[in-house]
Amino acid sequence: MQKMFDIVGLGNAIVDILAQTDDDFLLREKLHKGSMALIDEPRAHYLYKSMGPVKLVSGGSAANTIVGAASLGAKTAFVGKVKEDELGQIFSHDLKSMGIHFSTIPANAGSATARCFVLVTPDGERTMNTYLGASQTLSPDDVDESLISQSTITYLEGYLWDPPEAKKAFLKATEVAHQSGGQVALTLSDTFCVDRYRDEFLELLKTNKIDILFANQHELKSLFLTSDFDIAVTMLQELPVLAAVTRSEHGVMVVDRNAILSVPAYPVDRLVDTTGAGDLFAAGFLTGFTRGSDHANSARLGAMAAAEVIQHIGARPESDLKIMANENGLLTSELA
Amino acid sequence: MQKMFDIVGLGNAIVDILAQTDDDFLLREKLHKGSMALIDEPRAHYLYKSMGPVKLVSGGSAANTIVGAASLGAKTAFVGKVKEDELGQIFSHDLKSMGIHFSTIPANAGSATARCFVLVTPDGERTMNTYLGASQTLSPDDVDESLISQSTITYLEGYLWDPPEAKKAFLKATEVAHQSGGQVALTLSDTFCVDRYRDEFLELLKTNKIDILFANQHELKSLFLTSDFDIAVTMLQELPVLAAVTRSEHGVMVVDRNAILSVPAYPVDRLVDTTGAGDLFAAGFLTGFTRGSDHANSARLGAMAAAEVIQHIGARPESDLKIMANENGLLTSELA
Repeated sequence: MQKMFDIVGLGNAIVDILAQTDDDFLLREKLHKGSMALIDEPRAHYLYKSMGPVKLVSGGSAANTIVGAASLGAKTAFVGKVKEDELGQIFSHDLKSMGIHFSTIPANAGSATARCFVLVTPDGERTMNTYLGASQTLSPDDVDESLISQSTITYLEGYLWDPPEAKKAFLKATEVAHQSGGQVALTLSDTFCVDRYRDEFLELLKTNKIDILFANQHELKSLFLTSDFDIAVTMLQELPVLAAVTRSEHGVMVVDRNAILSVPAYPVDRLVDTTGAGDLFAAGFLTGFTRGSDHANSARLGAMAAAEVIQHIGARPESDLKIMANENGLLTSELA
Repeated sequence: MQKMFDIVGLGNAIVDILAQTDDDFLLREKLHKGSMALIDEPRAHYLYKSMGPVKLVSGGSAANTIVGAASLGAKTAFVGKVKEDELGQIFSHDLKSMGIHFSTIPANAGSATARCFVLVTPDGERTMNTYLGASQTLSPDDVDESLISQSTITYLEGYLWDPPEAKKAFLKATEVAHQSGGQVALTLSDTFCVDRYRDEFLELLKTNKIDILFANQHELKSLFLTSDFDIAVTMLQELPVLAAVTRSEHGVMVVDRNAILSVPAYPVDRLVDTTGAGDLFAAGFLTGFTRGSDHANSARLGAMAAAEVIQHIGARPESDLKIMANENGLLTSELA
């Protein structure tokens, strides 16, 4: 049966606040370069006051993926919690302007819309500090069962495991998706997230809660507590899951119990900012997957979308990915 | 007597909301490419809903100038009205994070902080639609007399002539500046602004209310209702004012009753977005001027600051202009 949506994403609803900084600032504030840390409100106020002039763009890992999939022509929806404030309106506008179904009721009281302070050092690396605010009030009540039932893929970000209510929403969505014949995809988000929830993520994978897993090589090694990538892949093959493992310039491996398929990275003229690479890979892979492409073609579509997003600042595509995919012959006739 | 501030700027306090669009959208919405139009709240809501995904950066013409001057090491202050909302906090943060004195009390009720919808077409041109919101409630009460008295230059944007209360604030600042031995500078802002207020601007100039005038060649021709640039310059020389006329790649002319001085444009690798060029020229010129540089050197400093801002998207500098100026030997020892 054809469902109404190809992909529904559940994730933190975050606006990114970007500022240039230097290594001294990171050292002084004890910030771990390249990582994502969760911060509370006083810390958010303090950091903001210490930062230079800013730029704002909508973000959030799963939201970035859904925007990428929409740009490729997939029918998409998003579930995530903002507050009824100006940042919440911006987040909501940016999804709706891409034709994405977004009907999670915004909070009208309590914490402000989530924001991620992205500190960009002269080497182009980004250090993230996230204040989850309203995003952590996402609860099982926000998971519209008919929306999940009407989606081929329910896509979840590992970061959702941080707020306790969101975790419950995540589990409810997983259950509803499977009851209605849908599939569940998870991204491990980052190595620190895997560190926090390794046992729970492994349990989800072992008990068939997750059908498709997205991870980069570092997250995969962290998941299996090994420094040897080949060992991690062998351990991955023991789990009942289809996995796409991204390896930066070394391309992608699509792994299941029976096979390992390698797809090269898409050529890049100039690497500017790697943020969003994993999010956009998932966008391309899932778009191909839900439209019946084989794994190799889906992975190529993912690699192309990731290549677009790393050639500019920001984690959302700036070009029309559908046009790009058609030019590269990566969309099936149904989508094109 | 050495004053506390080199430059205090009075202007609209605006956050820019940028989106990519195409020429069809401009045609459909009857938007005049490259111009700035004022819009009301319903129109602002409508346009925002019709726009694609956005990026937010602080803007405002005089505010951009003050940020540029601060980046060059000038002691600066700003007067402009935001509301106590999230966009207002962003605007305020971005000034204070540059060390700029900004103490205008934000409105706690009424219209939201001003925003300018900047529609960027594939040719790199920008079409602006400004909702003035809280900005137009700037009133004479917001003009702190001691602040103006303590500033060598009081810098005003022509756009301030649009909101009636702001115009009164502008005139009060002019008076206080002159009473305390300061000088008043004005930018004509854009040709449409000159069209709206030609007679009033000419009256200000003829009656010695303005000591330093900033204009580009189009604004100057519009001011004197001529299509001949040389005629416009001749008419300009009849006014009791020092004028800096920017002419894009043809550089700058510094004009007073007795002399015309030409300074070439600063070399540019890649023109990306001309917005802010005039604002940043004024930043450099006034910084040089207040520190005792001659007109030629001040104009070169302005040309350099303008060149920086047109090589990236956005109207505020992304590099440390003071370092750039020192490398080019454009700062006097006192500033450097």
